[in-house]
Amino acid sequence: MMNRFLSAEAARLAPYTPGEQPLDAQYVKLNTNESPFPPSPRVVKALSRAEVLKLNLYSDPACGQLNGAIAARYGLQPANVISGNGSDEILAFAFRAFCGLGKGVAYADITYGFYKSQAALFGLEATVVSLREDLTLHVDDYMDFPGTVVIANPNAPTGIAIPREDIQRLLEADPNRVVIVDEAYVDFGAESCVPMIFRYDNLLVTQTMSKSRQLAGGRLGFALGSEALIAALNRVKYSFNPYNVNRLSIIAGAAAMEDQAYFETCCNAIRGNRAWLTGELEQLGFTVLPSSANFVFARHDQISGGELYQKLKQNGVLVRWWADSGRICDYVRITVGSMEQLGVLVDELQRLLDEL
Amino acid sequence: MMNRFLSAEAARLAPYTPGEQPLDAQYVKLNTNESPFPPSPRVVKALSRAEVLKLNLYSDPACGQLNGAIAARYGLQPANVISGNGSDEILAFAFRAFCGLGKGVAYADITYGFYKSQAALFGLEATVVSLREDLTLHVDDYMDFPGTVVIANPNAPTGIAIPREDIQRLLEADPNRVVIVDEAYVDFGAESCVPMIFRYDNLLVTQTMSKSRQLAGGRLGFALGSEALIAALNRVKYSFNPYNVNRLSIIAGAAAMEDQAYFETCCNAIRGNRAWLTGELEQLGFTVLPSSANFVFARHDQISGGELYQKLKQNGVLVRWWADSGRICDYVRITVGSMEQLGVLVDELQRLLDEL
Repeated sequence: MMNRFLSAEAARLAPYTPGEQPLDAQYVKLNTNESPFPPSPRVVKALSRAEVLKLNLYSDPACGQLNGAIAARYGLQPANVISGNGSDEILAFAFRAFCGLGKGVAYADITYGFYKSQAALFGLEATVVSLREDLTLHVDDYMDFPGTVVIANPNAPTGIAIPREDIQRLLEADPNRVVIVDEAYVDFGAESCVPMIFRYDNLLVTQTMSKSRQLAGGRLGFALGSEALIAALNRVKYSFNPYNVNRLSIIAGAAAMEDQAYFETCCNAIRGNRAWLTGELEQLGFTVLPSSANFVFARHDQISGGELYQKLKQNGVLVRWWADSGRICDYVRITVGSMEQLGVLVDELQRLLDEL
Repeated sequence: MMNRFLSAEAARLAPYTPGEQPLDAQYVKLNTNESPFPPSPRVVKALSRAEVLKLNLYSDPACGQLNGAIAARYGLQPANVISGNGSDEILAFAFRAFCGLGKGVAYADITYGFYKSQAALFGLEATVVSLREDLTLHVDDYMDFPGTVVIANPNAPTGIAIPREDIQRLLEADPNRVVIVDEAYVDFGAESCVPMIFRYDNLLVTQTMSKSRQLAGGRLGFALGSEALIAALNRVKYSFNPYNVNRLSIIAGAAAMEDQAYFETCCNAIRGNRAWLTGELEQLGFTVLPSSANFVFARHDQISGGELYQKLKQNGVLVRWWADSGRICDYVRITVGSMEQLGVLVDELQRLLDEL
């Protein structure tokens, strides 16, 4: 980027490209893993006119109401919780808190693309560990790494989960090494590491309300961990943006957290839709990786990933595809939307394949 | 901070201490410069149930609606605007974008305390320039500084403004040096530098919706500048948090920006209240600095800043006081609230002084 004002550090950044958020056309939008369901009725009720009228006042920088609701849900103390403006912000806090000169970070070659951007943001030495041939992650490949390890579980965009015991081995191998488990998609079928927080003070679990709690537009993420880890994150937060969560998101997040029944209903529906979608895709000849998330990662021998993406888009269906992505360039990632959305997708796929 | 997980960089941070946000008692809260008025009726209307029901969808990462409304208000193009999760986030983006190794930052010894925190966040060499004896800022003191200059205008917590021409001299002295003018409080009576954006591509103006637009709880700040500067900020944003403004704040901010009449009514009311408060304080024997902001900075010969702060708090009135702050430790900063709030404050001050 040619820009005479840019610092050398900013010139070296690796900005993230988010999935398309088209405003100009109505797509069947299956590209950014949003929930097809509206937020909980409790959220709608909580965001009252009376609360809107208080927007002239700052939000609580400690996010007491929200962190309290999250802590209660997971049987933790508020000192084990920090909330942020999406889990992206929380991850950035963690990268700064635990990594630096001589303290690098390791993550998979195929995983959430944002780890790379944030490593570049803080000028970190990043060790990129290849997934195995079958796109699975083996914790043994991280066992000797001396810095911070970040593992998305289930992984994105593969959707493949690893058992909690694998993370446990990693935590035990070096109690001074922080392991960040990004559980953005955990509620759709993977084993959460949250129950291990009391045993391992080097475990940080990050989660988001964007997927299983229907609040992508509210920008809410959080981390759970030992008091020492959360204190370190707060140190960064108060150096960056003390009032990092706005009033309405605090209220919405607390209400969403308290509506466990709605949460479970929605997660169950997604799991059901995922099973249906997987079956349909396989019947159409797709290879579908075993997903524990609210998306599936699939490829077809007769059509390239790029062509699939383009043709679907032309016909009004958005999925995610990564160009120039090496061994995953023939895959597309498809969000598990509503049955209506998935019906349209499957019909379009059928038509595309018939035309080949 | 003793914490075995902390990186050396995180250990060196200088976290900011925000003003008290007590949740447990009803104070006359004049300590964090919030507006005493609710948000615009247009904001209340815009935050409809229909919008809340869309919170399952991500916000527009480009903040098109919001940046468009801001650009229209100031006669700029959307490419001259970036919005953020409060102006704190925008300032952090700017510190990273323009500063780094060999490219330091300069700011006043008495100014918004957050510049220090953010300089530490990015490990920047900070040059701290003393205000003059009378707590005024002279741009001549920055003329030869080779790095980025940050000037709050009006300054906080003094409230004292400098003329636009002073900033202009600074911009012209070195066209390759970025000058950040933090105009958080500009709408209450200082000269904005926004009209100079077309002439000086090294000028970045930051503003907030927390003060003059009644949206402190919505967390909305923005920067205005040349396309080159805004592109540099976006480079950092997309490395840190692409979806940095939530759906409801985008809508609220756009609606607030479009209600110019309400904005002017509120700003005029604050200016009137400030004149009244200043007169009353002076009659009580206070020295009050000439304020162009929605707060006044005042001291009294017969009572220390700390005692004033404590006694007011005991009697239910919160003002801001900085302990161990050298030559400003006998000042308190008082937000210009509603006439009702200010009436309570003045009565309490009268009583305190009578008791001396």
